[in-house]
Parts: sequence; structure tokens; C-alpha cells
Amino acid sequence: MRNIKLTIAYDGTNYLGWQKQKQGPTVQGILEDVLRRILGHKIKLRAAGRTDAGVHALAQVAHFHTTSKRDLETIFRAVNALLPKDIAVLRVEEMDFKFHSQYHALRKTYFYQIYNHPIRNPVLRLYSWWVPEPLDLSAMRACLPYLIGEKDFASFRKSGTDLKSTIRTVYEAQIKRAVGMAHVIRFEITGRGFMRYMVRNIVGALVEVGLGRLSPEDFKAILEARDRSVAPPPAPPQGLFLKGIYYGKKWRAKDYAPKGVRP
Amino acid sequence: MRNIKLTIAYDGTNYLGWQKQKQGPTVQGILEDVLRRILGHKIKLRAAGRTDAGVHALAQVAHFHTTSKRDLETIFRAVNALLPKDIAVLRVEEMDFKFHSQYHALRKTYFYQIYNHPIRNPVLRLYSWWVPEPLDLSAMRACLPYLIGEKDFASFRKSGTDLKSTIRTVYEAQIKRAVGMAHVIRFEITGRGFMRYMVRNIVGALVEVGLGRLSPEDFKAILEARDRSVAPPPAPPQGLFLKGIYYGKKWRAKDYAPKGVRP
Repeated sequence: MRNIKLTIAYDGTNYLGWQKQKQGPTVQGILEDVLRRILGHKIKLRAAGRTDAGVHALAQVAHFHTTSKRDLETIFRAVNALLPKDIAVLRVEEMDFKFHSQYHALRKTYFYQIYNHPIRNPVLRLYSWWVPEPLDLSAMRACLPYLIGEKDFASFRKSGTDLKSTIRTVYEAQIKRAVGMAHVIRFEITGRGFMRYMVRNIVGALVEVGLGRLSPEDFKAILEARDRSVAPPPAPPQGLFLKGIYYGKKWRAKDYAPKGVRP
Repeated sequence: MRNIKLTIAYDGTNYLGWQKQKQGPTVQGILEDVLRRILGHKIKLRAAGRTDAGVHALAQVAHFHTTSKRDLETIFRAVNALLPKDIAVLRVEEMDFKFHSQYHALRKTYFYQIYNHPIRNPVLRLYSWWVPEPLDLSAMRACLPYLIGEKDFASFRKSGTDLKSTIRTVYEAQIKRAVGMAHVIRFEITGRGFMRYMVRNIVGALVEVGLGRLSPEDFKAILEARDRSVAPPPAPPQGLFLKGIYYGKKWRAKDYAPKGVRP
């Protein structure tokens, strides 16, 4: 039995998120179908983290087991040839059988794009949250230190979800103006792992601070309240991008897909 | 009778181009409908230049005549409230009655985006041409001087079109790596005006040079042949953006829409 790791980019616009479901197309569903056709048996993909409907990924990671003997380059070429254009496999790697895309992820990075201009931007509408009123970036940045460390993020969990623990570790968080994209503000966050809606809930609260409706101290108080009901609603999904997942040097693949391979 | 100038941004993905037609939705058709509802009478919009199906605009310009007395800010807010999210009016200006968006345009700038990487990019698929093989930018840049000046661009006109003249004036042309977007190459061209498909036909030929299938001398020979049949096929529409149109200082609007107005 082989253990194969995929690095995947997708535009979440036309999907009900990563996780397979009966109501409509999902990235997992499409990928499992394509892999089954290539490998000749049913495939169960496990992703590092699920993304919600409308959320994009620049480098999602998932793994699967297979008895197929097809070489990595063939899998790489065939999967990209059969996938729709809004999903691409960036890399196919042969891993130790113990490797698990979710359990062994050491760090995940997401970013969130805000288009901050009085008039909406038609070509960024699927890749950003349009906030027409000017945002005070200094006030927003003043909130960032409160996010760093091992904290109880219960205030930023998804409403109505039941979780064993709402404690998560955030390593880094920053707010920058995007290079080369006028009026785009990018919030980037790296942590051990995130709860569903956690990044979007943080962005929802940060934007309230940027608009002056909350102070950085209010933001701190919301976080410390550990109560979802005191935090503002989540930012919409289309601004969120899963940027990448880091596994550490332990999990070097035994065999990489050749660089520059063309699908 | 008033003469109103609109500056318009749109995502061309879901439209059959600018020009009104019966087969499906167009930017002109949608805008004329919305303006008619706001102003109470039928509106005829004239654009600086038509864009084809799938082509985007960051700042298209169009004008129309109206007997309505509605103030500019009301028009601005109402039109943006009624338009779909993939079209936005950036500015509404009151012009001298003689102003004509097409005849008085002094310069138009287009750019064309190429995603040059072995693996396709899902989130750029609607805004770039994916060219997987590496492009030689030096060879492509060596073609640019041939484009500058008043020339007969017959080789780059749309096949099967009948034009009074195929002579056009190009002022500037450059090729750059896009800032902040990895693997994106941007060709930007400014001229007095362009024929249909002219920019896409030029890009189609430049990419052949970048791939080493044609030399810069071949590019020069194609241009000098003044024969559409010797040039490569056009680049696809989704990489093309109408960036802006310049009218000169003569046509200062009498009254600007206030800056920072929110739709």
C-alpha cells in the first residue's frame, strides 16, 4: 500500500467547500472521482483542513492510500488533465505510510483579502471582501498581539458548533497592504490549527475595529470573554485563502514529482 | 439636453462583450437598461471602444445624452445600486455637449496578462492566458520597437473584417513581470486606437517569439507583410484588460462626481 500526498490549489467560488457532500460539488468529491478513474479503485482523501464554501486554496494538502503502481508523474499529468480548470494539483509526493496530512501539520497559514475602496472592484469581487468605508490599519494592527500564543479562541468559533477544545495556538499575525493590488488589505495568520470560521470571525472583529465601531481594547475583551455571542459576525468566505501548510523536515517525501513537470 | 460621461469597470467573464446584442447579456445592454430605469427614458450609450466577449475593463469610458435633471451623485449611487456586482461605475461627469467618448479619445491603454508557469493557476484562470512553457522575455521585448509609431497593422487585424484603414498609431509598448503576482507577465500597450483583436493578435505573435517558434525578425516580417494570414492566432480574451482612456485637458468635465462617494 502506498501513501500519496497532493498539494492542491483551487478557486472555491463554484464549490460547497472541501468536504464531500450530497448537496453539490465539492473539491474533495471532484478529486476523489478523478483519482478513482486514474487509479482504478475508490479513493478516500484526507485533507489538512476543510475549507468552507467559497474559500480558496493556494496550497491545500491531502493524502490518500492506493494499491496502484502508477508512477507519480503519470498521476500528476492525468489528474490535472481530468480536473476542471478551477482545481489544480501542484505536486504529487510519495510519503512514508505513517504520514497524515491533518495530524502531522505543524503550521497552517491563511490570508484574508479586503478591498477597501468606496467603489466595488468587479474583477476582485470573488477574491475579496468589499469594505467601502476607510479602515484604520493602525487600530487593526493594535489588536494583533492579543491573538498570538496559546489562547482560548471560543469567541471566534463557529456559532452552534460543539468542540472538545477551543484552545488554539497562533504563531504570527500581520496586516499589510497587498503589493501590486491597489486598495487591497491582507490579513495573514499562521497557527498550529484553526477552528471552522475562526479566521473569518477574527477578520469580522478586526474590521469593526478598523471602522472605529470597536476599540482594540474591545477586541481584547471579546477574545477574553470566550463567548461567541459577544463577537461580530464572520467576514464573508470569498476573501479567505488557505496559503500553505508546513509539516517540518521529518516528513520529507521519498520521491518528489519532478519540478517543472507540465500537466 | 445634458451629456454625461461614465467611467466603468467590468469583469467581462459573463458578458458577450461591450456591444449590445440579442444573443445574450452585454455590458452596454445592462448599463442602458439600468440608466433607463433611473432616468425615465431610453438611453443610447457610446463607448470609447468596444471590448469583445471575456475581455475586462478597469476604466472603460462611455457617454450618453439625457433630458433628466437628476444630479450626478444620485445617478452614481442609483446606477451602482442597480448594476450586477461584475460591473461598477467609477465616475459620473457632466461634459460639454460636444464631448464624444470615441471620437475625442487621444490615447487608449490595454494590458494583457500571461500566467507563465508549468501548472495552471485556478484563481487567475479568468484573468490571464496560461502559457505553461517558459517564455523568453528578452526575445519578446526585442519585438516591441517594431510596434511603435504610425504603422499599417493589417497583419494584426481580425480575420474577415473589412476596415477603411488598417493604419494605427502606437505610442508605447512594454513587457513586465507583474508586481505582487508570481509568474504573471504583463504586456501593456498605449495607442491612439486599436482595431478589433489587434492587441490579442499582437500578444499571440509575441508569445510565439517567447516560445522560440518565431524570432523577433520573423515578428518584424509578419508586421511588414500587412497580411493577416501570416500571423499566429490571437491570444484568448480573458487575459485582456482595457486599462484606461485619455482625453486630454480640453475635455475637463464641468462638474465632477465627488471623490470618495459611496455607491
